[in-house]
Amino acid sequence: MEKPALPKGTRDFGPSVMAKRQFILTTIRTIFETYGFQPLETPAMENLSTLTGKYGDEGDQLLFRVLDSGEFFSDSSVVVAKASHYLIQSMKHLVYEFFAIPNEERYKFVEYLQKEELTKPEILHKWLQKYYHTNILKGRMVESLYYNIDFLVNSHLANENFLRQIAGFISKFIKDHSSNLENRSKEEIDHILNYYLIENYNLLYSIIGAIVNPKLIRNQVSEKGLRYDLTVPFARYVVMNRHEITLPFKRYQIQPVWRADRPQKGRYREFYQCDADVVGTDSLICEAEIVLMIKEVMHKLNINNYSIKINHRGVLNGIAETLDAVGKENDLFVAIDKLDKIGEAGVHTELTEKGFASNQIDGLFKLLGTKGSNREKLTSLKTTLAKSTAGLKGTGDLTEVFDLLNQYQADDNHVEFDIALARGLSYYTGCIFEVKINDVVIGSVSGGGRYDNLTQAFGSKEQLSGVGISFGIDRLYDAMEELKLFPKETLSSSKVLVCHFDETTRSYGLALLTQLRAAGINSEIYPDVTKLKKQLDYANKKMIAFCLVVGEEEMKSGDLTIKNMESGEQEKLTINTIIHKLVH
Amino acid sequence: MEKPALPKGTRDFGPSVMAKRQFILTTIRTIFETYGFQPLETPAMENLSTLTGKYGDEGDQLLFRVLDSGEFFSDSSVVVAKASHYLIQSMKHLVYEFFAIPNEERYKFVEYLQKEELTKPEILHKWLQKYYHTNILKGRMVESLYYNIDFLVNSHLANENFLRQIAGFISKFIKDHSSNLENRSKEEIDHILNYYLIENYNLLYSIIGAIVNPKLIRNQVSEKGLRYDLTVPFARYVVMNRHEITLPFKRYQIQPVWRADRPQKGRYREFYQCDADVVGTDSLICEAEIVLMIKEVMHKLNINNYSIKINHRGVLNGIAETLDAVGKENDLFVAIDKLDKIGEAGVHTELTEKGFASNQIDGLFKLLGTKGSNREKLTSLKTTLAKSTAGLKGTGDLTEVFDLLNQYQADDNHVEFDIALARGLSYYTGCIFEVKINDVVIGSVSGGGRYDNLTQAFGSKEQLSGVGISFGIDRLYDAMEELKLFPKETLSSSKVLVCHFDETTRSYGLALLTQLRAAGINSEIYPDVTKLKKQLDYANKKMIAFCLVVGEEEMKSGDLTIKNMESGEQEKLTINTIIHKLVH
Repeated sequence: MEKPALPKGTRDFGPSVMAKRQFILTTIRTIFETYGFQPLETPAMENLSTLTGKYGDEGDQLLFRVLDSGEFFSDSSVVVAKASHYLIQSMKHLVYEFFAIPNEERYKFVEYLQKEELTKPEILHKWLQKYYHTNILKGRMVESLYYNIDFLVNSHLANENFLRQIAGFISKFIKDHSSNLENRSKEEIDHILNYYLIENYNLLYSIIGAIVNPKLIRNQVSEKGLRYDLTVPFARYVVMNRHEITLPFKRYQIQPVWRADRPQKGRYREFYQCDADVVGTDSLICEAEIVLMIKEVMHKLNINNYSIKINHRGVLNGIAETLDAVGKENDLFVAIDKLDKIGEAGVHTELTEKGFASNQIDGLFKLLGTKGSNREKLTSLKTTLAKSTAGLKGTGDLTEVFDLLNQYQADDNHVEFDIALARGLSYYTGCIFEVKINDVVIGSVSGGGRYDNLTQAFGSKEQLSGVGISFGIDRLYDAMEELKLFPKETLSSSKVLVCHFDETTRSYGLALLTQLRAAGINSEIYPDVTKLKKQLDYANKKMIAFCLVVGEEEMKSGDLTIKNMESGEQEKLTINTIIHKLVH
Repeated sequence: MEKPALPKGTRDFGPSVMAKRQFILTTIRTIFETYGFQPLETPAMENLSTLTGKYGDEGDQLLFRVLDSGEFFSDSSVVVAKASHYLIQSMKHLVYEFFAIPNEERYKFVEYLQKEELTKPEILHKWLQKYYHTNILKGRMVESLYYNIDFLVNSHLANENFLRQIAGFISKFIKDHSSNLENRSKEEIDHILNYYLIENYNLLYSIIGAIVNPKLIRNQVSEKGLRYDLTVPFARYVVMNRHEITLPFKRYQIQPVWRADRPQKGRYREFYQCDADVVGTDSLICEAEIVLMIKEVMHKLNINNYSIKINHRGVLNGIAETLDAVGKENDLFVAIDKLDKIGEAGVHTELTEKGFASNQIDGLFKLLGTKGSNREKLTSLKTTLAKSTAGLKGTGDLTEVFDLLNQYQADDNHVEFDIALARGLSYYTGCIFEVKINDVVIGSVSGGGRYDNLTQAFGSKEQLSGVGISFGIDRLYDAMEELKLFPKETLSSSKVLVCHFDETTRSYGLALLTQLRAAGINSEIYPDVTKLKKQLDYANKKMIAFCLVVGEEEMKSGDLTIKNMESGEQEKLTINTIIHKLVH
């Protein structure tokens, strides 16, 4: 039997990894809730119509599609096989019939075909109906063609392309052989037709290909896909529940997402996203609270050396205006965003290649070189961008965020106004954030920003502005692992293992276990009667902190041996004292 | 634009539902951890080879299959189209070549074909190699056939059936025309061949059909499926990590599963399962702890009127032995299991239909009618089943479980030894459990039992016995909703909303907010400066318990107005007093 394996790019999280992940997730969840965010969960599967077109072509390619059910797929394949068989048969017979009708009528038909108006299902239907019901085209085979196409159209297996192929095939044959075939016997027509069909294999394949068109089949068999991020389901939820939602709506969502990306180190096909968003208010209090939440998360995770980079799309647009680069913002921002990776020279080269003049590039670097504290940089930029409405909106908003932080009695430690932060070509329109841990070579562990219109993609007229932040759990995990920041308690499983020597001491131990658990102490008993060594080994392997050893003597005296498994120290104490020590 | 919708059978969990679900899940999770169970998470997607064959044919049908990626699908379709085109072309040319070789050699080949040994890829390869390399069959087209088949075989698009179709096609043609085609010109052969191909469309379709065989494509495009339960992924995890796992292994797992079932009231296509299992020990301590955990879960969820039904497969097998119904256990247990639903008369009818004699049925009802306390019923059954090894094992185990409960200082309140509990045709081998809430018409909210061999399905030689319990979150939720058992605190979002009148009071409020949150009180501020009424409305709609109203006067005095949103009462208190009151 084959050894079981995991699908590429997916992971199991065993107990020790789970304990650490839960430490991160519980920390973040608690902070989200302290700040008034409420949980939302959406299903793993969404309709493809919800997902497609939201992440660009590349994103659509990376959607995991879910097959509707095993049965449909084989059904549809049988339909295709049967239908294409009958279709070709009936096409052949249509041609026979065709040469049986009066010449004049036939020429009209050829003319009609040449206009190629048969590409729309309704027109083809109408045409067939006309010829069928007026009895100009007679017989079982026309009927068969009619019902076959009818069936294919109704079962959504035939699309316009398919009908165009059929019309093209029929009209090409008739055009090619119109003169050649007149006054021939049915056998002769059949012969020529067979030869024609086999010689025009490509045409035949296009027809079959149109039926078994992968996209057509895929859309038939798969109407669902796995969630690609948490933002689109959130927007979908807001649109669907708009009337029950109280604005401003503060939700957080912690769930896995799936991407059919090529797996590589640190990139998985299933990973958790951890988002908090406020929609329905433009207040910069939300931005300030995002900074506060990030600070609190980092503090609670024991991460001290990090920076929260903050910028504003308005500042970036102001820079573009000032440099006279309006219309070329994308090239500009993409290049700026790479400053970290490719350095000043690299950005210089890239911008030159993109057609920026050297005075523009010099101007840019002068701006990016603005030095000083956050406030100083803002003051300086306010002057430089004085003529740009966007620029002033940006610096104004950022100033207010810093002011608000003060009103919260918080400082701007760790917060860095970074003019070069662009956050790709994303849909952000206001403040943008990114968090980096300075001691490790790991990308940003958190990012987010303000957007203008959450529900636009779903055709919502109401303009719902919002701002959100997302934490990268895998990167936080890797960083904390590298920096050895997980508290020791996180690693242990149960706190106490009750050990025993025989059924009598085990029985006594069960009552103790009840007391320990009643006090909320995670604890267990070695279930089988076995050697003490085996029980202590079990505790060691599972990193259980204490062993409570119950022997005959302990049962009599009530003074129990409690052994600290790390230090090896052991004491004799009553169960009440032990519980008191372990709880406090 | 189409209104967005949810896939059939799936749900969003909005904030208020989430709060209640989290109450249930946190309760269960905490109890699992108190009992020494450790968390495990496995990926949503598993390889189909892991999933199929584990849930019976019906289960296999209900698996949601995931397409490997968008790209592959269209790739494979192109491959199929191209390959079938070239294949048919090269088959034709193979036939031309064939009639160019000496008669004697050709007859040998026909004989060979008639034996139809070409159905295995290796043999077809070998055969083609022989003819290709000995230059008996020459030319580009044989080479093309060779490489085409090679390609199809290597890309796993050709299976045995496909190769059988090709061999059959070639051999049929050659047999049909062997005499007819001798000494003809290439053009004549071509003509006959074309005619043959088109007349034998069915054959051609079988060939194309074999390539676009739905199962073949499905297995090509889908090697993954969504998790159907948590037991199979758990078993897969244990097999894959056997060397790192310390036995006994106690894991719990709380994750969604997916089933392509027809959605209906209370049955969803995505739902959470919540399992705890111990593997690697036969100790009945595990069974006793399952009873204790259920009791604790029900207690913490405020559910008081429920019963934990317990039985043992040994008891059931003992009954079958005693009734002389060995070999008919399934019919017997299935019928017994329905006692609740169809009553005694119904079971009687069903058993009669299944061919049970009336003395067997009378004997059964006498056994099922055993009255008394759990202990009394066990004592009585020990006598009745005295001759059955299985029966005595069952009653013995159950007695020990009740003994162990006493040793834990627990009673058997709520626990009911139910001889009629069978738990379907599942893989349980020892104790079985089922929990019902008595006040509501909802099926069992929990169930489980002991099984002999967790990892057998993965070919593991080691026999890992275990016992597990599963809670039905949706049913628990529905029951608690119906019985109004969710604590009021669960329903609220933030505990405090800070309200204000202008920027100055809002600014003062921000500092208060920082203090509230530092004390761990979930709280928020209305972000925009707006009318007090709107802020209080917001608090009401979100069921925020208290509003802390900051006016000019409050700012001066430091005596803040705190309003209880439910009672309407308001007091003037300092922030420290407020925090003290809210925390304790």
